[in-house]
Amino acid sequence: MPMNLVQSILAGERLALSRLLTQVENDTSAGREALIELFPHTGKAHLIGVTGAPGTGKSSLVNQLALHYRKTEDKKVAIVAVDPSSPFTGGAVLGDRVRMRDLSGDPKVFIRSMASRGSLGGLAQTTASLAQVFDAAGFDIVIIETVGAGQSEVDVARLAQTTLVVEAPGLGDDIQAIKAGILEIADILVVNKGDRPGVENTEKALKSMLDLAHPTQRIFQHHGTAMRTAAPVSAASATPIWIPPIQRTISTDGTGIEKLAELIAKHAAHLRSSGDWAVRERARLEVELATLIRTALMKRFQETVSQSLYESTLQKIIQRTTSPWEAAQILLKEM
Amino acid sequence: MPMNLVQSILAGERLALSRLLTQVENDTSAGREALIELFPHTGKAHLIGVTGAPGTGKSSLVNQLALHYRKTEDKKVAIVAVDPSSPFTGGAVLGDRVRMRDLSGDPKVFIRSMASRGSLGGLAQTTASLAQVFDAAGFDIVIIETVGAGQSEVDVARLAQTTLVVEAPGLGDDIQAIKAGILEIADILVVNKGDRPGVENTEKALKSMLDLAHPTQRIFQHHGTAMRTAAPVSAASATPIWIPPIQRTISTDGTGIEKLAELIAKHAAHLRSSGDWAVRERARLEVELATLIRTALMKRFQETVSQSLYESTLQKIIQRTTSPWEAAQILLKEM
Repeated sequence: MPMNLVQSILAGERLALSRLLTQVENDTSAGREALIELFPHTGKAHLIGVTGAPGTGKSSLVNQLALHYRKTEDKKVAIVAVDPSSPFTGGAVLGDRVRMRDLSGDPKVFIRSMASRGSLGGLAQTTASLAQVFDAAGFDIVIIETVGAGQSEVDVARLAQTTLVVEAPGLGDDIQAIKAGILEIADILVVNKGDRPGVENTEKALKSMLDLAHPTQRIFQHHGTAMRTAAPVSAASATPIWIPPIQRTISTDGTGIEKLAELIAKHAAHLRSSGDWAVRERARLEVELATLIRTALMKRFQETVSQSLYESTLQKIIQRTTSPWEAAQILLKEM
Repeated sequence: MPMNLVQSILAGERLALSRLLTQVENDTSAGREALIELFPHTGKAHLIGVTGAPGTGKSSLVNQLALHYRKTEDKKVAIVAVDPSSPFTGGAVLGDRVRMRDLSGDPKVFIRSMASRGSLGGLAQTTASLAQVFDAAGFDIVIIETVGAGQSEVDVARLAQTTLVVEAPGLGDDIQAIKAGILEIADILVVNKGDRPGVENTEKALKSMLDLAHPTQRIFQHHGTAMRTAAPVSAASATPIWIPPIQRTISTDGTGIEKLAELIAKHAAHLRSSGDWAVRERARLEVELATLIRTALMKRFQETVSQSLYESTLQKIIQRTTSPWEAAQILLKEM
């Protein structure tokens, strides 16, 4: 069965694609088998992460960007919309409807919304797997859209080769509004809603933040998650470093989108010529491997340690006669 | 040595406390030993999580709340400010300075800022440990402040017994602004900056979101991280359910802070009478145990599997001759 599914995916069949995406999201064994079969066909797509605080107009921007890739470059575009805002209900309904109006019916566009189920590791892992499916299915561009600032978005955005951080004027005037912008992961800064008052101030603030950030010392490293860190590629030191450009856009009418697409292409070219593409690819796959190992180890633990020992140890923690640290040691001795 | 440190902490010595917090943040063995010794002295503090999008004025609100507990209730107050906005630089400098003006010099207040280093599991784990230290050191109230919406904040907020979600008028007018509010984890909703235009609309929107959320079906469950989920305490069904109240505040002048403190006390009383306090305590400690086990297992993995096998397997993934799933199986066979 999975082989048939895999052949259909590679042949570009939409229904098979849709079905596999569901299998992957639900983490079924058929989905996993298909991922293994598809993996050799991955590595061709350009993964673009789009992140930013709520209210910046990210969804419309992604919409416009996808339209641009369709109309002027005839590229196959997939959008993975990750919405970690609601761990219970899963959102993105209205946002999708807006998007669908422009892109629906186009066979070279595929939009997938993901509710943020499960733990963070699971979210980033599932997003990575969905991106792999689209990559293998021949999509040239895979846009990964996430909401808000925070570690989860950082993790999801780091799946991408190029990360856009979207800001907008007037999103709160205190310092935190900029502090919380995950500036450091941005390859390109987008100031959307560029027709709003205060846009110059937003750009000025971003520029001074960039100066403070010392871009010469930026390191691409996945904190804590990768097991061992790749040594920097020596070739990189010979090429000029990438200083995140700031692009103003108005996603409601498409202003600035073409220039933004140019910057994205320029960034991809920079990654290739500097050797950073390979560095990021390695880091990305290393994180994926670490996540899979972590999940498998926990599964093994749960299968080995008896429910009754687990429960009695937990009770000792609750009664504060054993600390969590000691309890972990006791349980791990069973493995 | 650690025993001396522990005695000093229990005796309320500030310098020892400060030193231990650093040890715990750096995850040293001395810090871990002290945590084990201190653990029996924990379980008395009321942990209050404060979360919300950037620009809502969370820091000032926490400031006012701490002042209230000092001035009118003479409680010892600790603040753990977690700032996951900057994985590279660590932020919160200016926010702290503002806060310090009102609270500095008070021996019954302790403020600790944490940059978001390390992975998410690490962040929540470190925050939990810091809260334990404050708890053992006799702080009655431990306020855990986090920035923004997202899974990481959900995880950190869930360390608390009472979680405040802070909103403010005018933070972006599209649907996402509310969608991204992590409404579902809120025990109390705070509409801060209550003197701003649009405050009624924000409250109205929150009210309709609450109605949609079907509070009767709210479940306290840590998605994906806890290994086994506690069965609901049957006593809980006999007591009235908690519907998150909405409290308007103006943190710049303290309006609404007293009422907010009343709601917080009311929520704690509700948790105790309904049995939910015990349910949350169990869930919280279970998550902590799971995190410790996961970390220990990964450490064991890294010590067992040779660097050369790891590296050659990773290379096969990069060359796309082995999928990450297969690679994980190969490496795990070594353990």
